[in-house]
Amino acid sequence: MSNVESLPLSVSGGEAAAAPCCPPLTERPYSAEEAETAARMFKALGDPVRLRLFSLVASHAGGEACVCDISDVGVSQPTVSHHLKKLREAGLLTSERRGTWVYYRVAPSVLAGMGRLLGPR
Amino acid sequence: MSNVESLPLSVSGGEAAAAPCCPPLTERPYSAEEAETAARMFKALGDPVRLRLFSLVASHAGGEACVCDISDVGVSQPTVSHHLKKLREAGLLTSERRGTWVYYRVAPSVLAGMGRLLGPR
Repeated sequence: MSNVESLPLSVSGGEAAAAPCCPPLTERPYSAEEAETAARMFKALGDPVRLRLFSLVASHAGGEACVCDISDVGVSQPTVSHHLKKLREAGLLTSERRGTWVYYRVAPSVLAGMGRLLGPR
Repeated sequence: MSNVESLPLSVSGGEAAAAPCCPPLTERPYSAEEAETAARMFKALGDPVRLRLFSLVASHAGGEACVCDISDVGVSQPTVSHHLKKLREAGLLTSERRGTWVYYRVAPSVLAGMGRLLGPR
């Protein structure tokens, strides 16, 4: 995941700093508040198109991608933008406008944080 | 997670052997099929009540729990049963009826498999 953390860009749009929020799911029963926070992240990845977009951004050269890099997920560009916004609102992506395009990257520590929920490594 | 793998019970109900399905999200863009499979798991955990129930089962003594063990998540027992069934259908829990109750446990390797999606360890 070194690509995720390179280039210390100034970012905006991480409305919900969702991870790390919670202990591993196996540690103890979640409180209502913890479940609310963590479920928001899981739900954001619970749509096939959003998950494809997330993997596209997460695996893209340089660790970031813009709508202009995305053409083959079978939905229109406005729909792509809509889903990227949802991922950003869930705290999974950050965004930065440069010129014509908004560039998205995986929010630092999000993958590690979500991985931690799923148990000790 | 040793509690998850103790007691080699015969299990049933894992309709969708959902994990491990897919490479890490950071490795390359997911195909439509991979995204469909993985999104099903994330979606199942994308509801706060279901996530609380999942953490309750995953952290319960002996690595399993039945509806009779669950009383404080703020929903009725039929609703609890409904959500546990959804988790089972997503391949996240397995179930076994013993006497009056159905016992649920985390499907072997599910947490590890989902953790793998979220990146290299």
